[in-house]
Amino acid sequence: MQIESEWLQQQIDSLVVISEEPAPVVTRILFSDADLRAREHVRRLCHDLQLKVTEDAVGNIFARWPGSDPELPPIATGSHIDAIPNAGRYDGVVGVLGALAALRALRASNFSPRHSIELIVFTSEEPTRFGIGCLGSRLISGALEPEHALALTDVDGNSLRRWLEAIYGGEPTLRSVAKPKGCYAGFVELHIEQGPLLDRAGIEIGVVESIAAPATLRVQITGEGGHAGAVLMSDRHDALLAGAEIALSVEQAARESHSRDAVATTGVFRIQPGAVNSVPFRADLEIDIRDTNLSARDATLEKIQTEITTICHRRRVSAATVILNQDAPAVCDPALVKILEQSAASLGFSSLRMVSRAYHDALFMAQISPTAMIFIPCRDGISHRPDEFASTEAIRRGTQLLAEVLRKLAA
Amino acid sequence: MQIESEWLQQQIDSLVVISEEPAPVVTRILFSDADLRAREHVRRLCHDLQLKVTEDAVGNIFARWPGSDPELPPIATGSHIDAIPNAGRYDGVVGVLGALAALRALRASNFSPRHSIELIVFTSEEPTRFGIGCLGSRLISGALEPEHALALTDVDGNSLRRWLEAIYGGEPTLRSVAKPKGCYAGFVELHIEQGPLLDRAGIEIGVVESIAAPATLRVQITGEGGHAGAVLMSDRHDALLAGAEIALSVEQAARESHSRDAVATTGVFRIQPGAVNSVPFRADLEIDIRDTNLSARDATLEKIQTEITTICHRRRVSAATVILNQDAPAVCDPALVKILEQSAASLGFSSLRMVSRAYHDALFMAQISPTAMIFIPCRDGISHRPDEFASTEAIRRGTQLLAEVLRKLAA
Repeated sequence: MQIESEWLQQQIDSLVVISEEPAPVVTRILFSDADLRAREHVRRLCHDLQLKVTEDAVGNIFARWPGSDPELPPIATGSHIDAIPNAGRYDGVVGVLGALAALRALRASNFSPRHSIELIVFTSEEPTRFGIGCLGSRLISGALEPEHALALTDVDGNSLRRWLEAIYGGEPTLRSVAKPKGCYAGFVELHIEQGPLLDRAGIEIGVVESIAAPATLRVQITGEGGHAGAVLMSDRHDALLAGAEIALSVEQAARESHSRDAVATTGVFRIQPGAVNSVPFRADLEIDIRDTNLSARDATLEKIQTEITTICHRRRVSAATVILNQDAPAVCDPALVKILEQSAASLGFSSLRMVSRAYHDALFMAQISPTAMIFIPCRDGISHRPDEFASTEAIRRGTQLLAEVLRKLAA
Repeated sequence: MQIESEWLQQQIDSLVVISEEPAPVVTRILFSDADLRAREHVRRLCHDLQLKVTEDAVGNIFARWPGSDPELPPIATGSHIDAIPNAGRYDGVVGVLGALAALRALRASNFSPRHSIELIVFTSEEPTRFGIGCLGSRLISGALEPEHALALTDVDGNSLRRWLEAIYGGEPTLRSVAKPKGCYAGFVELHIEQGPLLDRAGIEIGVVESIAAPATLRVQITGEGGHAGAVLMSDRHDALLAGAEIALSVEQAARESHSRDAVATTGVFRIQPGAVNSVPFRADLEIDIRDTNLSARDATLEKIQTEITTICHRRRVSAATVILNQDAPAVCDPALVKILEQSAASLGFSSLRMVSRAYHDALFMAQISPTAMIFIPCRDGISHRPDEFASTEAIRRGTQLLAEVLRKLAA
C-alpha cells in the first residue's frame, strides 16, 4: 500500500487558505464563512473518491465506503477541520485528510472491505463558539442532551438552535444525531500529538491508551463601573480585578495539585466596557481544567470554585458560574491498542504508548465504540499556533498506519 | 435671564439616540458613525442660533457669537459630545448643549457682547480610540505635537492621519490647530461632577480650583501560546497571567500611595487568541493613573512600571510599555474662580470649591487661557455608565451660572 504523500501535503496546504485570517494563520470558528467553505471543500473531496456522503442535523459529515457485508457494523475514522483563532494547519485536519489518503491507498491496492469504512468529520471539536468542545461527537455518543445543546449560546447571545435554523432551515432535529452503542466495530482517530514527547524522544508513532479528562467553567463577574478618575479606590468593585485574582488562582490550583498532569488555563477573559478611563463592571472568563486522573481533576475544579466564591465575596462583586462540561477520561480499547502497536511494528515504525492530554472526538466515540488513537510527532509539541508543524514524512507514517489498521479491521 | 430648561432637556434627550447602541446606552467613539452624526446635529443647532461655525483640521468645532469689539479676545466655553462605550447622556453633553442654552438666554435678554463668545466642541475628549484623551484641546494648547498625534493608532492599526485623510480628504494640516496663549480672555467649562461630593452634601454648584493630573500607560505583553491541555504548567509563559498580576499591582500601587486622591485603573485588558483551550500568548493593557498631586502621581506611575518589569521578568514574557500621556495638573484662574463663586451666590446657589479628579478639556485650555469649571451634582457620583443622571433643575442652575459668567466676562 502506497500513501500519496505529496497529494496529502497539497490537500493540507490547500485548506490553509480557507481561513478567516491570511496564511499561515488558520482560524475556522464553527459556522463562520471559513468553516462552512472548508466543510464544502472536504465534502467535494469525499465525492471525488466516490464515497457516499451524508450529514446529520448538527453538521457531522459521514463519508462511507460501503463494505461487501452490509450487515456488519462499519469501521470509523475521522477528526475535525474547525480551528481556534490563530491556529495552525495540522490539528484535526491530518485526521480528516489523512483518512482520505488512507482510503485512496486502500482503493489503489484493490482492497475490498467487508465492513463499510466511514470517515466522520465532526462538528465543532473546538469550543470557541459555544465554550464547549466536541459538540458533534458529544451528540453522537449521547453525552450531551439535545435540548441542552440547542440552548448553548455564543458571545453574541445567539443559540445553537438559532444557528442551525439559519444554516439548515426549519426546526433542528438533534435527537436524530445520537447513535447506539455498538453501531461501529471500531473508531481510530489520527492526530498530531500537540505535546513534545514524541518529537523529543524521536519516536515515530504514539499509541494512545487513555485521554485526559477535561472540565470547563464559565464565570460571569459583575461588579460596579464608574469613572476611572472619580471613583476612589476604596469605593470600587472592579470586575477585572476579581477576574485577575481568579485567573491567578486557577494557575495556582493546577500547580499545587498532587497530580503532575494537572493543567488549568484561563483562555477567555473579556471585560466591559473596556475603556481606559472606566472601571470595568463586567468580566467574562472561561477556564479549562484537565488531568489524566479524574479525582485529581475534580479536586482542582472544586478548589477553583471555592476560590472564585472567596475572591468575589471579598471584592463584593457577584459571580455566576456554570460548568460547561465535566467529562470522564476515556480508556482506549486494549485490543485495538494492541493491533495499532503490532501494525506499527510490522511497518517498521517505532512507537510509544501514551496518554493524550489534549482531548479529542475519540473521547466521546469511546462511549459507543472500541476506540484508539494514532499520534504523530509535531515540532516542539507546539499546537494551536500558526507555527504548528508536522513533517510530510511523519504524516505519511501516521496515514500508512491508519490505512493498515483500517484494512485489518474492515477485512 | 431665563434658561429654557425644557428645551435644554429635550436637546440632551435627543442626542441619546445618536449612539452606537440602543438608548439609554450612549456609545459615541471618535469618528464612529454616531460621533459624526452627533457633530452634524450640534453644528445644525449652532447654525439655528445664527452662530458663525468653523471647524479646524482635527474636527474641533467653533461656533462664534461675534462681539461688538472685534479687537478683544473672545470668551470661550465648551466641552465634548463623544462618549466611551456604555456611557450615559450627561458627560460632556451638558457643557455643549448647556452653553447653547446659555447663549439663547443671553440673546433673549437682548444682551450684546463686547467680546465675542465662542462655543468649542472639542474632538475626542474620551481616549477610547487612540488611548489618549483630550485630543482636540491638547492640539489647541500645543501640549501634543502634531506629528506625534498623526502617528497615534487605534486597535485596528489605523492612524489618526489615516482617519483624517478618510474623513476630510487630503493631507491633514494639524499645525494649524494650535492657538497662542492669550487668544481667549477666558474659558469656562460646565460639566457634571462625575463624583459624589456635591450630591452627598446637597450643594448645588462646584467651583473647580484644580484638575487632577492623569497619566496613561499602554502595555503589550508577549508570552507563548499553545494547547491548554498539552503544555504543562511549568513550561508556560502565559501573557494573561502576567497581565493579571500587573492589574493587581496597579490597584496595590494606588492603594499604597500616601496621597489619598491616588487612583489607578486597568481599563483595557485584551488577550489573544482568546480561546478557552489555548494558552494566551498576548495581553494588551491600558492603565490610567491620576492624582491631584503631581509628584505622588509620578511616584505611583514609577512603582507600576517597576512592577511590570519584575512580573514580566519572573514569568519570562516580554513587555513593551509606552507612556501615552503624563500631564501636569491644572490650577484654575483665581480671578475667574472668584467670579464664579460670587455669581453663584448672587443667583442664590450654594457652592463649594473643589478639585476635579476626572480630567477635562479645561486641563489643556488652562495652558493658553484663564480657565475655570462649573460642576453640577450627578446622582451618587455615577458617571461613564448608562444610569448617569443629573436633574433638569441641577442642569438649569449650572447653565444659569454659565450664562451669568459669560455675560460678565463678555460685557
